[in-house]
Amino acid sequence: MRSTSPAEAFPAATPAASQIFTTVLSHGPLTRSETAERTGLSAAAVTKAVRPLIEAGYLVEDVDEEARGALGRPANPVRVEGGRALFIGVKVTGDELIGVLADLCCRIRVARHVPLPDRDPKPVLAAIADLVRELLMEADGFGVQVRGLGLAVSGDVDRAAGTVRYSPFLDWRDVPLAELAAMTTGLPVTVENDVRALTVAEQWFGAGVGLSDFAVVTVGAGIGCGLVVHGRVVAGAHGVAGEIGHVAIDPAGPPCHCGNRGCVEAIAGDTAILAAIREATGAEVADAADALALAHRGDAGARAVYARAGEAIGRGIATVANLLGPELVIISGEGLAAYDLFAEQIRDAFAAAAFGSAARCDVRTRPLPFEEWARGAAATAIQSFIDTDRTQPQPTRS
Amino acid sequence: MRSTSPAEAFPAATPAASQIFTTVLSHGPLTRSETAERTGLSAAAVTKAVRPLIEAGYLVEDVDEEARGALGRPANPVRVEGGRALFIGVKVTGDELIGVLADLCCRIRVARHVPLPDRDPKPVLAAIADLVRELLMEADGFGVQVRGLGLAVSGDVDRAAGTVRYSPFLDWRDVPLAELAAMTTGLPVTVENDVRALTVAEQWFGAGVGLSDFAVVTVGAGIGCGLVVHGRVVAGAHGVAGEIGHVAIDPAGPPCHCGNRGCVEAIAGDTAILAAIREATGAEVADAADALALAHRGDAGARAVYARAGEAIGRGIATVANLLGPELVIISGEGLAAYDLFAEQIRDAFAAAAFGSAARCDVRTRPLPFEEWARGAAATAIQSFIDTDRTQPQPTRS
Repeated sequence: MRSTSPAEAFPAATPAASQIFTTVLSHGPLTRSETAERTGLSAAAVTKAVRPLIEAGYLVEDVDEEARGALGRPANPVRVEGGRALFIGVKVTGDELIGVLADLCCRIRVARHVPLPDRDPKPVLAAIADLVRELLMEADGFGVQVRGLGLAVSGDVDRAAGTVRYSPFLDWRDVPLAELAAMTTGLPVTVENDVRALTVAEQWFGAGVGLSDFAVVTVGAGIGCGLVVHGRVVAGAHGVAGEIGHVAIDPAGPPCHCGNRGCVEAIAGDTAILAAIREATGAEVADAADALALAHRGDAGARAVYARAGEAIGRGIATVANLLGPELVIISGEGLAAYDLFAEQIRDAFAAAAFGSAARCDVRTRPLPFEEWARGAAATAIQSFIDTDRTQPQPTRS
Repeated sequence: MRSTSPAEAFPAATPAASQIFTTVLSHGPLTRSETAERTGLSAAAVTKAVRPLIEAGYLVEDVDEEARGALGRPANPVRVEGGRALFIGVKVTGDELIGVLADLCCRIRVARHVPLPDRDPKPVLAAIADLVRELLMEADGFGVQVRGLGLAVSGDVDRAAGTVRYSPFLDWRDVPLAELAAMTTGLPVTVENDVRALTVAEQWFGAGVGLSDFAVVTVGAGIGCGLVVHGRVVAGAHGVAGEIGHVAIDPAGPPCHCGNRGCVEAIAGDTAILAAIREATGAEVADAADALALAHRGDAGARAVYARAGEAIGRGIATVANLLGPELVIISGEGLAAYDLFAEQIRDAFAAAAFGSAARCDVRTRPLPFEEWARGAAATAIQSFIDTDRTQPQPTRS
């Protein structure tokens, strides 16, 4: 049965309490003293912040009366009770919605795909509302309240304002998506750029836990990049950041839809790969799957196009490494299906173009299916739920 | 007379107190409530932190008994007493040392240039010791203690370890400069990459005050870049960051000393410009001044080389903007002498290659003579002096 009672406030009213909860969420189970060490806060502050979180059921502790630390503080580790709250994350692509119901530890409980027949904001919003209604009914089965909705959209998104400023794939401009979705769903809504949402999920719950500087590079229809610098996702002063797809690496390269030439995306994006394969081979490849199949059948022209795409991606990643010196670059996205066709070129181009010790950056692939992007959207909703001031607390460095 | 008494500790023992002092240093004079607002700390915390800083003479307040705020808290603005402490900053170039004596507000009191006949660590260290001794004598004249020495060196510098890992200009590898200089001078020593040191000075005392995301791009012998993201200078997980000079923009471009082709520095660095002008014009240009004079006399070949350099710099800056979306890019360095020859090309290439609203980034020039680089070194010494934990407090965003 869906609870209709007003949602109680999350009992972490201060930035320090949010930081403590976030640290246990990303790194837990942790004892209070381990939490104090990681956050740089006093053990007393941790003990004080943990108490109401345990009382409200957000943290749990296996009580063992034998294990008591100094000053009589409980030495048992505490961890987040994932089932205490649910969140919905929806990734909006050009032709479908992917929705997940995730718990407070961002574990997916239910996933749904629905086709998107029309990209105009109004029908998309109606489809989101239907999908959310369906997931809310699933949530009833768990007897747990849904505490927030995250929406992930490609393009220029102003998270603070809740608006999609420009999404080329959807052809949207200045859509106040958070406000509209809050009206139709009744949930608190967070809207974020899809790659940044995926990056938040990696930072809080994935391969980026404990890292203060890393990047997520997504290859597929577009070439995107989420950057974490000094422990926080880079949003850009004007909404644009992580545009690795529009790093121009070759003035003699193919024209890009952005008006420039030789952008990474104009060489390594799906559309660019299709066009280049058609031109090189004369084959009638209809989509990325066709192109991939042709290359996997051994067509030399198609293979050369993928090789060039890999080189462009590797050079783009080297540019990120030369400017920011991250610890880790995670390559993901649906384009990973072609990874065997360009992995070597990515590696070689990165090694050649990375400057000095920037080459020590760990470059790794991590397949993240579209559900993971929806999970990223849920992660932003969890982030908004926890943070009293979203710009302040972040998981601390390990 | 030089004080020989042991230096008393700086009375800001907590990260919050450091943050308060840093905020007044960058933004002051500020009232306590303005300081509280900027730092996000309570007025009580500010009042508590300010008291010992006033007692020790680091902050001053013009007492006006009429002006009392709520709760009887003094409403007078407080400001940093610049003359309370002195710092020495030294920029090490390939052929000279530039040293400054700066006060706590990073105002230059004395500046000195000394030639560097030999680039080996030992003679450089001896020259630094001589220069520091001379500046310490100047400090005696002010009757104020010198509290730290900052050394700025180009290349891969590990500030935390105090070592120069690799400096191509000096041909140094793994020189424990901080330790060696501390032994010869008796001062606490901070060693930082020169461009990052300049960036610290801009962030704390210059055009970057109040900005959380900006970049300093230096043009000249090398093309460097200091990046401030989320209010902190980016150092890179492995010591390399801001290597805009080695962003490769043209696979058909000239070879670079890094082993790659078409790096920004291989097109726009002094050596590259000289080589390209010699090749294009056949003229025997000996140095940057010669090259500049030839172009200023209207030689079309030389002017085209500068134009191409400007285009490369503009494309490099656009790459920074596309990845990080800063509010401001400051172009500086000795290469600004040629600014009239490539300003337009920088602007045009930036506008063409910046993606979407990243183009709204303010790109500005700011001549910073070599004394300013030494001042940057002094700024890092001030930073080390103030910060109880250098990774924590930073000037807050305005």
